[in-house]
Amino acid sequence: MPDYAIGVDMGGTNLRIAAITTEGKLLEKITLGVKLALGRDYVIGEMCDAIHRLTEQYRESGNFVGAGIGVPGIIDVEAGMMRKSANLPGWTDYPVRDVIERRLGARIFLDNDANVAALGEKWLGAARDVDNMAMLTLGTGIGGAIVLGGKLFYGLSGMAGEFGHVTIEPNGVPCGCGNHGCAERYASATAVVRMAREAIDSGLAPELAKAASSDPEFSAKAIYNLAIQGNPDAQRIFQRFGQALGILHSELVNILDLDMFVIGGGVVSAWDAFAPKMFSELRERSLVYAASAPEDPTGKKEGASAQIANYTRRKTIITQALLGSDAGLYGAAKLPVSQ
Amino acid sequence: MPDYAIGVDMGGTNLRIAAITTEGKLLEKITLGVKLALGRDYVIGEMCDAIHRLTEQYRESGNFVGAGIGVPGIIDVEAGMMRKSANLPGWTDYPVRDVIERRLGARIFLDNDANVAALGEKWLGAARDVDNMAMLTLGTGIGGAIVLGGKLFYGLSGMAGEFGHVTIEPNGVPCGCGNHGCAERYASATAVVRMAREAIDSGLAPELAKAASSDPEFSAKAIYNLAIQGNPDAQRIFQRFGQALGILHSELVNILDLDMFVIGGGVVSAWDAFAPKMFSELRERSLVYAASAPEDPTGKKEGASAQIANYTRRKTIITQALLGSDAGLYGAAKLPVSQ
Repeated sequence: MPDYAIGVDMGGTNLRIAAITTEGKLLEKITLGVKLALGRDYVIGEMCDAIHRLTEQYRESGNFVGAGIGVPGIIDVEAGMMRKSANLPGWTDYPVRDVIERRLGARIFLDNDANVAALGEKWLGAARDVDNMAMLTLGTGIGGAIVLGGKLFYGLSGMAGEFGHVTIEPNGVPCGCGNHGCAERYASATAVVRMAREAIDSGLAPELAKAASSDPEFSAKAIYNLAIQGNPDAQRIFQRFGQALGILHSELVNILDLDMFVIGGGVVSAWDAFAPKMFSELRERSLVYAASAPEDPTGKKEGASAQIANYTRRKTIITQALLGSDAGLYGAAKLPVSQ
Repeated sequence: MPDYAIGVDMGGTNLRIAAITTEGKLLEKITLGVKLALGRDYVIGEMCDAIHRLTEQYRESGNFVGAGIGVPGIIDVEAGMMRKSANLPGWTDYPVRDVIERRLGARIFLDNDANVAALGEKWLGAARDVDNMAMLTLGTGIGGAIVLGGKLFYGLSGMAGEFGHVTIEPNGVPCGCGNHGCAERYASATAVVRMAREAIDSGLAPELAKAASSDPEFSAKAIYNLAIQGNPDAQRIFQRFGQALGILHSELVNILDLDMFVIGGGVVSAWDAFAPKMFSELRERSLVYAASAPEDPTGKKEGASAQIANYTRRKTIITQALLGSDAGLYGAAKLPVSQ
């Protein structure tokens, strides 16, 4: 029987723990609600119990090589510490890895949720055949990660891949990070709702206003549904979303010229509503993309596309993630497998 | 005696050829005017003659390990071909490397001028002690290159590091690449002159107008001189320049989190006029920089700097290049040494 690892994906709502073979086969997955209100130690206790249960269960199956844990926030990977997390305020500067390592007597790896999602897509998902890729996860904000030569690229402070806070509009909407016009202020679930609220407040989007007043949870999903039903105000929001992602990707492609950019996270399900605008923006803005992009299916050549010949047979690929919400679970399990 | 390589730096004006030991010591440098009007074959002939002269001269000194050639434009490094060059129109799709290799019977490496400048600064200049760095050369446009793990990072199509065409102002000034608001439209010698001409045309910059009318070559250097003499219109241009470079670096730092960003090229001599604004913009816009930046000497905390604790002892360094116009010559000589 093959050896196996444990992957843990800790979100704001769910705590998921899976036993996965070193070949990438799922053995078993446990999903728990995260009881943040009961405190850090309680949540860590539940996580350790679940890991222990799985390792007991698969004891005979193969060697347990260790567990990887993906958490939201800024992580010091070398130290195995949580530095800062908006969702987990009581975890600041907490030595998560060492605490769990001591309790379980196993090798534990801690990493950021965007990094483990990228590692999952690289291992078993959309990017399995490329070595240099970046991943963007569109959710409440935008998470980002870079894989180079098949390995996560951390940078000087472990913060490489902060795509959500890349400026795409220097005088744009203020962001909690202190900057103005960050990508995630235009291309995230939060941004979709903000733009809808602003359209409603302007008095120019009566159908959105009607939808909002009859839906107490008025969410990005609801606004997407209106867009695919043909509501022009909702469509305009996803055009802005696509334009922002196109500008962001034009910057990423011009800077990094990677083989593949994988877009995941919950909001990627609105792909049809934002992707055409994203691609047209990218073709116009990035000479590097234009030089190596697949032909535009519509045959249009504007901006950068009109300026440079498509001289390479290599193609920059921008595509949807394949593993959905399991990317982080698989990627976390890959952490002990890669080491 | 140590072995040696030849470095060639081919600019729009000068062709420089140097013999440099594999330890980085300059043995001899030849500077020729580039006679582009006499055609590609003539220029390549002059280059080959000069390389031959140097290898004859140092024949007894040590082994000749090969020559590296830095040229402006888009290069296919693997194929050793020039793809596209604004300065060298007759060289498109020309197999420069193989032609020279055949004539000289030596190992030849061809690369882009920004790449060899970065390699020079990494080998013997500002970045000699770091492994992950990027270099921007501020000249007519902005050249860029990325070094990771001590080696040039090329990307899928060899175009990684196109920093000059990164969007910093989505509805900004049109660029020859097809995009709007590219960094080099605000932070290059060309941009300085454009902004000065626009200020003059607006009728609101009488001193600039006077300077321009009495100086037929009205250059970025002349405008810089006015700025350091206290001319507020000239100073405003370098503020805009610094702001643009600050936005660009905020994007680069958030995406790549590298150890060091080295700024070179002719216009870096205007550092005093643009750098303070560049750093203040960067501190406000990049949470990654704020987390790992040296303390602000003025003690100000705004934007991103006010939002995140400086929690790492590692420092992101943004600094001037040290090798001046010789960076490309040294870096070109390093190409055969590294292989």
